[in-house]
Formats: sequence, C-alpha cells, structure tokens
Amino acid sequence: MEKIYEGKAKEVYTTDQADEFIIRYKDTATAGNGEKKADIAGKGELNLAITTAIFKMLEAHGIPTHYIETLNERDMRVKKVTILPLEVIVRNISAGSFAKRFGVDEGIVFEHPSFELSYKNDELGDPLMAEDHAIALGLVTKAEYDAIREQTLKINELLKAFFLKINLKLVDFKIEYGKDSDGNILLADEISPDTCRLWDKDTNQKFDKDIFRRDLGDLIEGYQEVLKRINN
Amino acid sequence: MEKIYEGKAKEVYTTDQADEFIIRYKDTATAGNGEKKADIAGKGELNLAITTAIFKMLEAHGIPTHYIETLNERDMRVKKVTILPLEVIVRNISAGSFAKRFGVDEGIVFEHPSFELSYKNDELGDPLMAEDHAIALGLVTKAEYDAIREQTLKINELLKAFFLKINLKLVDFKIEYGKDSDGNILLADEISPDTCRLWDKDTNQKFDKDIFRRDLGDLIEGYQEVLKRINN
Ligand SMILES: Nc1ncnc2c1ncn2[C@@H]1O[C@H](COP(=O)(O)OP(=O)(O)OP(=O)(O)O)[C@@H](O)[C@H]1O
Ligand SMILES: Nc1ncnc2c1ncn2[C@@H]1O[C@H](COP(=O)(O)OP(=O)(O)OP(=O)(O)O)[C@@H](O)[C@H]1O
Ligand SMILES: [Mg+2]
Ligand SMILES: [Mg+2]
Repeated sequence: MEKIYEGKAKEVYTTDQADEFIIRYKDTATAGNGEKKADIAGKGELNLAITTAIFKMLEAHGIPTHYIETLNERDMRVKKVTILPLEVIVRNISAGSFAKRFGVDEGIVFEHPSFELSYKNDELGDPLMAEDHAIALGLVTKAEYDAIREQTLKINELLKAFFLKINLKLVDFKIEYGKDSDGNILLADEISPDTCRLWDKDTNQKFDKDIFRRDLGDLIEGYQEVLKRINN
Repeated sequence: MEKIYEGKAKEVYTTDQADEFIIRYKDTATAGNGEKKADIAGKGELNLAITTAIFKMLEAHGIPTHYIETLNERDMRVKKVTILPLEVIVRNISAGSFAKRFGVDEGIVFEHPSFELSYKNDELGDPLMAEDHAIALGLVTKAEYDAIREQTLKINELLKAFFLKINLKLVDFKIEYGKDSDGNILLADEISPDTCRLWDKDTNQKFDKDIFRRDLGDLIEGYQEVLKRINN
C-alpha cells in the first residue's frame, strides 16, 4: 500500500489491484476550505461506518458506486475512478452558503430539490458554476450533465427516505462522481455528516458538521447519534 | 415627468402615460459594482443611440422589447415593466468574471454559447445563480426560465450577426427582462458597449466598457467607433 493522496478528511492508498484504492478515514475536521481545523478522535471511524451503511443502501437500490467493502474501522476498499472536478450539491431546505449568497433565512423548505454544481478547485474556492459553464469548460458533456443530474436527484430521494426513517431531515448534501476505466460514471467519495446537513425532524437539532463549523457542541456525540439511529 | 429612480447609468421618469417610462441615459461610467466611477461626457448619448439601433433591429426580428421611441439625444420612451431581479448573461468567448472565477484565459471560444443568471442585487454583489436557485427563490417558474433561456439564445444569435457585419465579435453580454401589466416578458433596459463585450474581429481591440474598467484608452472614441460602424 502506497499513500498517493492525503486530503483534509481522508487518505488514498494504492493496493495490489491496479483498479482499486483504499480510502482511510482520518480524525481531522476542517471547515471554510481548511481555515478552521481540529483533530477529533473517533470522527473517521464514525464517518466510515455511516458512509458504509449509505453506500450499501444506495447499491441495493441500483445506484452504481465505488464501494467494494469496508475492511476495518478505518479503511474502505473502492473502485479507482478519475474524480470529475465537480462538487454536486442538492438542497431541499435553505442553509449554509445558499442562505448567505442570496440573503435569505435558513430553513426555507423548497418545493422542488435544488441541484447545483461547484468547480472542485480549492485554490479558486470551489466556485459555483452554471450548467453551461461545466460544459463550456469541457468538464462534462451535455449528456453527462443530464445523467448526473438525474442520478443525483434519484440519490436525493433515496437519502431523504433513508434519513426520514430515522427522524432526520436531509437539508442538503455534496457528492462526487468519478469515471472508471470503462468510462462508467460511479458515485464516489463519502456520504456522511461531514457532507450532508441533517436536522432532527422534530427539534431541528443539527447532527452534522455545522456542530463543528459553528461551535454548537460535541461533534462526536452528534455523529454517534446518527450512527445509532441507522443501526437501530 | 417625475424621476422615480436614479441608477448608475440611467434615470427613470414617469410620464403622463401610466404604462410608460422615460429612461434618460447619463454620462456616468461605473465598474466593480460602483467602486470605480467617472463622468464621461458623451457616453449617455452614445449608449442611447447604440441601444436604439439594437432594439429596433431586435424588434424587426420579432423580439418583444420595452422600446417605444427615442425622443432626443438623452431620452427613450419605453413600456413600463416590473424588472425580474435577474442579470441574464450569455458568453461566446471567455472573459471577465468567467475567466477569473474559473482560472482560465480570456479569449477561449466556446463551442456552444454559455447561458447564466445572476441575482440582480447590488448589496449581495449580483451573485451567480444556478437554474434551480432562481426557481427555488421563486424568481421565475421553470416555464419562465426555459422561455427566457430560449429567447436569450435567439437574441445572442441576432446580436452576433449584427456585430459580425461590422467586424466586431460579441464576446458576452448582460440583458434584463421585465413583465408588463399583462404578464408578458419583454426585453428591457439597454444593450450597449456598457453591457456587451465587443472585440474587433481582426485585432481583438476592445470597444466596450473594459476600456474604462482596465484604463485602456479613450472610452468615447471606442463607443463612437461602434456607432460609426453601425451607421455605415
Ligand atoms: N474511488 C475513488 N477513486 C479515486 N479518488 C477518489 C475516490 N473516492 C474519493 N476520491 C478522492 O479521494 C480524496 C479523498 O480525500 P479528502 O476527501 O480528504 O480530500 P479533500 O481534502 O476533501 O480534498 P479534495 O476532495 O478537494 O481533493 C478526494 O480527493 C476525493 O475526490
Ligand atoms: N422598461 C423598464 N421599466 C422599468 N424599469 C426599467 C425598464 N428598463 C430598465 N429599467 C430599470 O431602470 C433602471 C435603469 O438604471 P441603471 O441601469 O442606471 O441602474 P443601475 O445603476 O444599473 O442599477 P440596477 O440596474 O441594479 O437597478 C434599472 O434599475 C433597470 O432595471
Ligand atoms: Mg473531500
Ligand atoms: Mg443597470
């Protein structure tokens, strides 16, 4: 195993299989494009366990993902892909950068899910892009854009139902897609409270990385509660 | 006539007709959301003359606009509309905020025109929005979005041809739409070198507000040349 990438939340390792990677979940929490940073013991384990449960659920519903198996408390074996430089975001309820950008309150429930793309580029601050921008820059074809949008809205419905069963509202989330060596577009990276906003259905208590971003309490307790509800 | 709005480049007056406004073109030039500002004698007259020629051309090609008549060297009589709080932008060639936002060179010719919307809100800095954002915020319905996109791409083709005949490349432009009292969506505001990027077809010399934004020379000479070519 050779480490080929160390990100803010995960490390990527090659394996003896040329078309596979191992992704190791770290205990680091970051916010604001890495401006705020902390080591939080137990976060990696929790995110891996939650991501595992979600990718298994999505696979069971016919969504092709990079997931192969979870090896231990830290490591997930995945299909190697070339990540599309896009942050694919769905919003069901206004929050975060959306509320700030457009000067509106958090908590507005949208009639239809809102789909958006950012250019995945830390130096540029992951800027929002219009559909045509992604196409003009050659990041995706129109057909790929349409397929990604459709697949993402399907994933949103599956995730919404998954979380609603455990009394959590899916406010918004970010996913990443990659292309395997055959050109198939697979859901990759992670889906966890680091990448979703999750509010308690009754109390609106936050169970996601906003606990860390906004100093709202104990992140680990929040993520543990999510995992506990998933496992019940 | 009562002045009801003073903008950065124009003033809006009521008339004795309840469904009409008079728009007076000023000699002020601004850039960077008003940060840079100057009085440039002759600019209002030139922009009014160029906008007049363009709105007449678009009307002749079946595009419904707010244009009624140009009264004198300063004033245009228009149909009163409620402006949609959207800056509607088409790009044929990379430049300006697009190049900066995505870290690419200016001058990249796109295979297809790129359509984008900004939220017309000076306090928020006219932020870019995704299609679904405009719908989620209730600024337009999906049907209105589709109609505006289609109409705007038609306008782009008409403008491209119009400028190409006078040896200018239409790099990008911003337009505004408004709703009249019957709910019809009309092209409104202005189309001028303040709101278009225009490059000489052979030399790429700039004949638009970038002359002012980037201190490239005499703005009036540039705008005069555009009007001269239109009138020839
Ligand atoms: N199946 C996969 N194949 C290849 N790369 C992957 C796969 N799944 C995820 N990745 C990438 O592995 C990296 C995981 O690291 P991490 O998420 O910590 O990065 P990061 O700090 O968020 O930075 P960035 O995501 O901008 O690279 C990411 O770059 C992610 O895009
Ligand atoms: N037919 C119309 N009916 C009503 N308002 C119009 C019409 N055409 C243009 N307008 C509005 O008239 C104003 C013209 O002023 P100007 O373009 O100088 O404003 P500005 O400084 O650019 O600020 P902003 O455009 O953000 O209001 C704009 O607000 C424009 O949207
Ligand atoms: Mg990441
Ligand atoms: Mg204006």
